[in-house]
Amino acid sequence: MKEIYLDNSATTKVLPEAAEKAAMLMLECYGNPSSLHSKGTEAERELKKAREAVAARLSAQAEELYFTSGGTEANNLAVLSAAAKRRGGRIVTTAIEHSSVLEAVKSLEKQGCEAVYLKPDAWGRISEKDILEAVDSSTVFVSIMAVNNEVGTIQPWEYAAKAIKLKKAPALLHVDAVQAFCKLPLNPAKFGVDLMSVSAHKIHGAKGVGALYVRKGLHLASRTFGGGQEKNLRTGTEAVPLIGAFGVAAAKAEDNKSLFTELNLHTREALKEFEEVIINSPEDALPCIINFSVVGIRSETMLHHLASQGVYVSSGSACAKGKPSHVLEAMALPRERADSALRISFSKYNSKEDIAALISGIKSGLNTIARSKV
Amino acid sequence: MKEIYLDNSATTKVLPEAAEKAAMLMLECYGNPSSLHSKGTEAERELKKAREAVAARLSAQAEELYFTSGGTEANNLAVLSAAAKRRGGRIVTTAIEHSSVLEAVKSLEKQGCEAVYLKPDAWGRISEKDILEAVDSSTVFVSIMAVNNEVGTIQPWEYAAKAIKLKKAPALLHVDAVQAFCKLPLNPAKFGVDLMSVSAHKIHGAKGVGALYVRKGLHLASRTFGGGQEKNLRTGTEAVPLIGAFGVAAAKAEDNKSLFTELNLHTREALKEFEEVIINSPEDALPCIINFSVVGIRSETMLHHLASQGVYVSSGSACAKGKPSHVLEAMALPRERADSALRISFSKYNSKEDIAALISGIKSGLNTIARSKV
Repeated sequence: MKEIYLDNSATTKVLPEAAEKAAMLMLECYGNPSSLHSKGTEAERELKKAREAVAARLSAQAEELYFTSGGTEANNLAVLSAAAKRRGGRIVTTAIEHSSVLEAVKSLEKQGCEAVYLKPDAWGRISEKDILEAVDSSTVFVSIMAVNNEVGTIQPWEYAAKAIKLKKAPALLHVDAVQAFCKLPLNPAKFGVDLMSVSAHKIHGAKGVGALYVRKGLHLASRTFGGGQEKNLRTGTEAVPLIGAFGVAAAKAEDNKSLFTELNLHTREALKEFEEVIINSPEDALPCIINFSVVGIRSETMLHHLASQGVYVSSGSACAKGKPSHVLEAMALPRERADSALRISFSKYNSKEDIAALISGIKSGLNTIARSKV
Repeated sequence: MKEIYLDNSATTKVLPEAAEKAAMLMLECYGNPSSLHSKGTEAERELKKAREAVAARLSAQAEELYFTSGGTEANNLAVLSAAAKRRGGRIVTTAIEHSSVLEAVKSLEKQGCEAVYLKPDAWGRISEKDILEAVDSSTVFVSIMAVNNEVGTIQPWEYAAKAIKLKKAPALLHVDAVQAFCKLPLNPAKFGVDLMSVSAHKIHGAKGVGALYVRKGLHLASRTFGGGQEKNLRTGTEAVPLIGAFGVAAAKAEDNKSLFTELNLHTREALKEFEEVIINSPEDALPCIINFSVVGIRSETMLHHLASQGVYVSSGSACAKGKPSHVLEAMALPRERADSALRISFSKYNSKEDIAALISGIKSGLNTIARSKV
């Protein structure tokens, strides 16, 4: 059975050239970058190349990039280190952040910080007005994602920088750009962003590596202790094979805007066939993500039916297996829509044929699965 | 020029079968283990297999193993989470631990914990007597390495468990087994060890992954926040390709005891040729590690000379580039020996020919490098 992988916001297939780089770094250039001999310096050069390649996609300098074990660690590091730096003030974030931001902020609340979680509208969008109202002169940290991972809604992260300026807040601004990286132009320095998180495995790099952009001159407290790697902000022997692969994936990543827009419009048109389907993503969302509900059939039921046809989609976020979606909840979707929501997400490997398989799978699902009153 | 890699305690070449597994997990079985469809469950099965393979080498249960980004994160997690659990008591560790233990303990000292750093003898060995004296009824945490990474000395970690029992201390026992893993029999449950750290890239796995053994029933506070992976102790999308490769490397790892013993004895015999050489590792150290001083020639100078001959060795620990060795300092070696120390460390890929190249390199070094009065 042909596999139709429509879950690229959960993770992606690694680019063959990136996997080759990883293999080379495992089998040939396998030195420890901390070693003083040529086997070590070779590995260090590979790190440098990768750092430059990833930084370039953020119009940043290589020295502003710190490799981590993934987006979660980058988000944790941003929230917890930045807040440790500026104790005691107000934190402004949104109710639809990834759990690696939300749970980190909640842990700070337990330690006595005040946190504000902005709610989105019914399309998953945080309003500029709400940001401006929430940020005040005691706000020390603002964290907002560039693109929501479940519905694809693009957030006004650039405006957050403006709001901080307007309110003369002493706040650091963190942007979780895991879903936006290499898909939208990102230039943290230009827009006054202090910290930005990215991840390799959403752009055809491998799982196990990400990076945190830290604005030049900003010194963060480390959460790790050891040999002093990554300028002591994130110590531990570097994951050279994954970092090298990340560099290749970043250098080769395309935004695929026209392909994704075409697939998006095609899918939206095709889904019109079903009166049970309601689309939850706004039309101006990142085009590679479409969230929709097949009202009457629970997400997991339809997901497993589609999987039995070789079509792989997601129910909510792959990071929160089985739990109800906090994003759809924050969007205040009616229960029957939240409980029947699916997310598809494209990569450059997808085509219209894949959409045809999806549509055919939904059709057979609607014909064979007993409707529940979800 | 042929490369003679004698720096396997810094890092190792990845086993081809392990690299193949990583490639398969990047290119074919690339699902997110948190995804509900078969692409996700396939990846989850691979995680499970790897967890079982690594656990087996500790005679542990798979559920007792938590994957981390490496030995450093495992050590940090053990020290900081265990100490957070049992606040306010005394910590007993040694002056020759890896920096990822030492620096973590120092950070606890800054928060008001009392810490004792046991000193080794001139051969890098911590004495049982000192452990017994240091552990008292207020001791909440003991951390001792199984094998020292710079000199290879095997430590009385099993005795530490006994001392805790004898003194009726409420202490958790952590053993950093990064250098010992797959080289010495390790059975934490049998010997009363609560926490044990291991790393993949010292056993022909890849850099970027390690694991912490946590005794069944012991609940540690997480230092990471997010989607809940690794039973919420170490959250973030799992580094599936590296973890899979770790599983293969662990399953296939041999202790190579007879090869290493042969190479060790051969090296010691060959080094007798040089009156300038003093061996710093005890005869009963882990046979794959030999630390020795070429008195009169600074470590880095000889290291670079050897590297120019294609022979790769280490000066002290690769994790502490350029810094004087805290281990040799704790062993109270005379300055001229500490400043001229080199470490060689074998893997199964080494042979007597490699030793011949080392000896020839040292000889030409002694003939060409001006002696400094270090």
